[in-house]
Order: sequence, then structure tokens, then C-alpha cells
Amino acid sequence: MRRIYLDYAASAPVLPEVLNAMLPFFVETYGNPSGVHAAGREARKAVEQARRQFAEAVGAEAREILFTSGGSESDNMAIRGVACTLKEKGNHLITSLTEHPAVLNTCRALEKHGFRITYLSPDTSGLISPDQVREAIGPDTVLVSIMTANNEIGTVSPVTEIGAVCREKGVLFHTDAVQAAGALPLDVHAMNVDLLSLSAHKFHGPKGTGVLYVRQGTRLEPLITGGSQERSLRAGTENVPGIVGAGKAIEIATACREENNKRIRELRDLLIRLVLERVPEAQLNGHPEKRLPNNCNFSFAGIESEALLLRLDLAGIAASGGSACTSGSMEPSHVLQAIGLEEEMSRGSIRLTIGRETTLEEIKTTAQILPEIVKDLREMRGWKKNG
Amino acid sequence: MRRIYLDYAASAPVLPEVLNAMLPFFVETYGNPSGVHAAGREARKAVEQARRQFAEAVGAEAREILFTSGGSESDNMAIRGVACTLKEKGNHLITSLTEHPAVLNTCRALEKHGFRITYLSPDTSGLISPDQVREAIGPDTVLVSIMTANNEIGTVSPVTEIGAVCREKGVLFHTDAVQAAGALPLDVHAMNVDLLSLSAHKFHGPKGTGVLYVRQGTRLEPLITGGSQERSLRAGTENVPGIVGAGKAIEIATACREENNKRIRELRDLLIRLVLERVPEAQLNGHPEKRLPNNCNFSFAGIESEALLLRLDLAGIAASGGSACTSGSMEPSHVLQAIGLEEEMSRGSIRLTIGRETTLEEIKTTAQILPEIVKDLREMRGWKKNG
Repeated sequence: MRRIYLDYAASAPVLPEVLNAMLPFFVETYGNPSGVHAAGREARKAVEQARRQFAEAVGAEAREILFTSGGSESDNMAIRGVACTLKEKGNHLITSLTEHPAVLNTCRALEKHGFRITYLSPDTSGLISPDQVREAIGPDTVLVSIMTANNEIGTVSPVTEIGAVCREKGVLFHTDAVQAAGALPLDVHAMNVDLLSLSAHKFHGPKGTGVLYVRQGTRLEPLITGGSQERSLRAGTENVPGIVGAGKAIEIATACREENNKRIRELRDLLIRLVLERVPEAQLNGHPEKRLPNNCNFSFAGIESEALLLRLDLAGIAASGGSACTSGSMEPSHVLQAIGLEEEMSRGSIRLTIGRETTLEEIKTTAQILPEIVKDLREMRGWKKNG
Repeated sequence: MRRIYLDYAASAPVLPEVLNAMLPFFVETYGNPSGVHAAGREARKAVEQARRQFAEAVGAEAREILFTSGGSESDNMAIRGVACTLKEKGNHLITSLTEHPAVLNTCRALEKHGFRITYLSPDTSGLISPDQVREAIGPDTVLVSIMTANNEIGTVSPVTEIGAVCREKGVLFHTDAVQAAGALPLDVHAMNVDLLSLSAHKFHGPKGTGVLYVRQGTRLEPLITGGSQERSLRAGTENVPGIVGAGKAIEIATACREENNKRIRELRDLLIRLVLERVPEAQLNGHPEKRLPNNCNFSFAGIESEALLLRLDLAGIAASGGSACTSGSMEPSHVLQAIGLEEEMSRGSIRLTIGRETTLEEIKTTAQILPEIVKDLREMRGWKKNG
């Protein structure tokens, strides 16, 4: 059976060019970048090249790029790091109800340590407005964390405008750009961000490598203490092959972004059109235009997403219910709840995310199989339209 | 120029078998282990197999094995996690002055947050005695952290006996076994440990993957919050290829331990004998018998280790001054200071660590070149014996 992978937002395959760039750093060039010898220097040189690749990709200086183990660590490092450093200045943080669990659960953990968090509520398309942020900022606010694009529904935030509000008010601004990288242009200056999180495996780099951009002058207490790696902000031997692969991946993602987006957006629009045409009582969640080019998030009345995912999987189609990080649990998506979806529609929602390997044929097949399964599942449950 | 790598304690090359085990998980089997589809299940299955490989290697249950980004994260997670969880019970932790920076600097960071730390002082061979631990434990002690074997001087701690004291006193015991893995047999029950840290790249696995063993029932506040990966104790998409490689590496390390140790120990003993014979005013640091089979740590009077490392590097020999994590900085080694080495001998110390690829020829060459360089450097500085 030919499989159709439509879960690119959960993880994307490593590109062969990326793997090739990594390969020499496993068996041959295995030095510890801290080593004061040829083997160490070669490893360090490769890490610094990757740092420049990321700096180039987001418009930063190389010294503002820190390597981490992934998006979750980057988010934790940014939020906990700033909260800890500035706790004398203030104990208030602002975020939104639709953030990734790495941001939301980190904020919830900080609440137990005396921090006060404002969770902004988005509109029905998932948008947080700059005015909401402005109104929430008080004299004790030290950090705003709003994602660049939502991982479940794909809604793209007005980050530049939110960043401008933060700057005007003298408050640090962090954005989780994990889902946006590769899809949207990222420029830390244009976006007015002080901290920005990335995860390599979302843009065809390896799992286990992330980046935290930290604007020069931003003080941060480290999450992982020990050796003096990453300007003493992140201890631990650098994951040299992972970092090299991540650097290559962001370079390719940036170079191919426009071309990929164009193709992927066309496939997405086709899939959305066909599914909404063919399935009654279906809706697209998230903003109709301000959304990631590869994201479809549908709700179907009278369906349990678990059963739908199971049937899709049996048909060879990989999709996701909500985000990967919360699938496996039967909780309804916190994002769909936050945008005010009624429970029935929230329970019957799935995410289909398209990638550079997706073909027109795969989209057509999916647009044929998915409506059949929905119909079948509805019949099994005796569901009737508006019933 | 043929290079001689004697910095295995800093990082070891990934074994070809390990890389081969990892390869399918980059480009082909790229699913997110949280995904509810075939691609996700394949990835999850591979992660769980690696978990069993580690459980087998250290005598634990699979559910007691958590994957991290490396030894430093594991140490931070253990120490910060326990301190945070048990802070109502007590605010006292015990460690030693010769621990890795990932332990020492984490303890120092906790001091700023109201914790009290006892730093035990080792004897001149680097040993901490179980009685020292017993005497230091008070009613408010919540954790003891003593490394299994020292990364700089190779001294092997009486972990089993220290663990027994902790158990008797009802105090949790963590050990950083990063340098011991692959060289010493590790059994969490025999060792009486509740938490144990490992790092894959020290035993020919990939950089960027570590393990924290957490005895069942040990409560731990997570360091990285977010998704529910690793039993909600460590958020973030699992580094599938890294974890697979680490699992394969610990399996091979365990199977080959006795055979490798025998060969490596012979090479080490030869190197120690030849260097001490050929270099006047030289000494071996660390315990003469209770030491890692691959570790040589020498001090040479009248030498600056920086110059010696530079000259060795020019001769194609990769060695280390102290540990990799502190090299690059000109601070004298905290370990050598702690064992009471006088400053002159501390400044002129280097670490040579042997691995499975090291040959007899390489050891003989090193034992010839090193004494020549020491002689040369001493002559340049006009150093005279006992002068």
C-alpha cells in the first residue's frame, strides 16, 4: 500500500542533502567542539557555520543564535529564563490560550512559583490583536509570548504589530516560530522580537535540534547549567551532526520557500475546496487567509476524530487530531476550545498538513477517501444532518 | 600526518553499526512518535526498543529510563527536579568538589534560590568516603549527588556504599555516570541509586542524546515542560535517530566491555609506565587502582598545559587539559585543586584518554613524543629539576 503522509506539521523527513551534510560528523569528525585540538576545531567550525546559517535566515547576528535540543527546550529557556532574570522587575507574563503546550504548560508551571499569567483569548479565527496585548501590559509585565503561527489551525499572528507594542511598552517579546519556519519569512528585526524559538525537524532538519534567537543585551538565566557552551547559556556538548543538519535545513528552507509555498498552497486550497464540497456539515478551522500555506484543519459534525484517524491510517493516510504533542490523549484540543468551537465540532476535527514531497495525486486520493470515511462513520453512528 | 586521538573522555566516534542503526530514522522513518498513524508507530516502536536496551544495560525497568539531550540535561533534571519537588521536606543537598560542572554549577545555581549545599572534599586520590556522606546528611537533606567516576582524573567512587548510606538515611541518591558508562558495569540496584545520568557520545553513540534513570516512585519536577512525552517528565519531540543510536551503542558497549577494558587497560598501564619513566618530575593524578581503565591524568612540573596541548596537537596528538567543558578557559582544574595539587603541578596537567580504536603503535608513539615535548618546553622556560 502506498502511504500518503499529511502530518508535516508533526515532523518532516530529513532531506537527503541535509543527511549528507550531517554524515561526516558521526564517524569521522567526532571531536568535542570544546577540545583544543584539530578534531575539536573541526567540530567547532561546523557548529559556527550552522550558527551563521541561522543568523542569515532570521536576520540576526551569529552570536544571537543559541542551539538547543528542540522547540520545547527553546520555549522553556526563553520563558523561564526571562521570568527568572527579571523577577525583581515584575512577575507578570502575557501569552495566549492557543499557544503550544511548551509555552502554555511552562506558564502554568511558573504560576506555581509566584508568577501571574494573562492568557489572552483569540477571536474565532485564532487571532490575538495587538490591542489585546497593549491592554494586558501592566507595570509589572516582563514578557509577552505569542506564537508566530499556530500549530493546529495554522493561523498566522500579527507578530510585527504585537512586537511593536511590546517595544513601545519596554516589555520583552518572545515568539514560538516553530511552525512558521520554512513557511513564512522570518526577520527578527522586522518582527520586533527579542526571543524566537525554532525546531529543525519541522523544516526537514533532524529531530533533537532547536534554536533560540536571543537579541543581544537580553539577559537570560540558563535552563541547563554546567559547562560554558553557547556563551554559558546552555551547557552540554553540542550535538554537532544535528546542528550541522539544522543549519543546512534552514538554508534550503529559506532558498526554496517561495517556490515550495506556491505549490503547497495550491495543493492545500484544492484539498480544502474538495473536502468542503464533498462533506456536508464540515468546516475549515482557523483563519481563511492568514494561515500557514500547508495547513488544513477540518471539523466534521457527528464524528470522533479518533475513529477518523484510525480509518485514515488503515487507508494509508497519516493525519493528526490537533497537534502531535497532545494526540494520544482524548482531551479536546485546547486551541479549538479557545476559538469557541462547540464541543461536537471540536471532537470531530483533524489536521492535514502538506509538505514538499506531497503530490497532486495524493491530494486527489485523500479528497476522495476522506469524504467516504466520514460518510461511513456517520452512517455507523446513525448520524443525521442537523440531527 | 596520521592523527592520534587520545581524548575519548571528551567524545568518542560513533560506531559504524550505531550509525547504520540510526540511518533509517532520518529520511525514511521520519514520523513523530506521538503521531497516531503508521509513521508515528514505527518511530515510537524504535524509541521503546532503545528504552529496553538501556533498561537491560543498567538493570532497570524500561519505564524508569527517560531520554534527554545529554548528560548535562540529565544532571540538571535530576538535581533541579528533586530539589524543586522536595523543597517542602528540606533544602539541603550534598555533592563533592570534584563533580562535573553540570552538577557543580547546578548546585551553585540552587544556592541562589535558597538551597544549602555541602560540597564534600575528596582525599588526594579524589575519593569521597561513605562516612563523609553519612556525617553530612542532616534532617533537611533531600539529595546526595556523587559521580560514579571522575571525568578528569578517572577516580572511581564507592557508589554502592554511598548509596547504601543514603538509603539507610532515607535520602535520594543521584550519580553522574557519564564517564563510567561503557567502562564500568552499571546496575542501579547494586549501586543503590535513585537517579543516574548517561550521555551517549561517551560510549560511541551520537552527541545530543542522554539518559536519566529515575527509580520508580521518585517524584521529579520536569525541567522542560510542554507535551506529555517521556511520561510528562521531559517535553519535546523525541530525537528518534539519536535515541536509536544511543540504544545500539549501550548494547554494544555492554557486550564488549570486558574485552575492550582488558585491551584498553593494558595500553593505559603501558602509557603511564613509559611516561613516568621518561619524564622527570611527573606524576599520575587520581587513584592508582580505583580509576577508569582508559584514563591517564599527568602533571608535569615546569609546564603550562596550554603550551603542551598545542605542541601535542601540532604533532597530531589530541589530548585535553582537565575536562573538555572547561578547556578553553585558563582556570586551573577545579578537580586538581580539590585533591590538593599544588598550583605548579595543577597548571601543568593533561588528560590522555584511550578508546577502542587506539592502537599499541599510537601509545608507543605518544610515549615517545610527549616526553620530548615536555623536555623541550622545560628547556625553553629554563626550568630546572627542583628549581
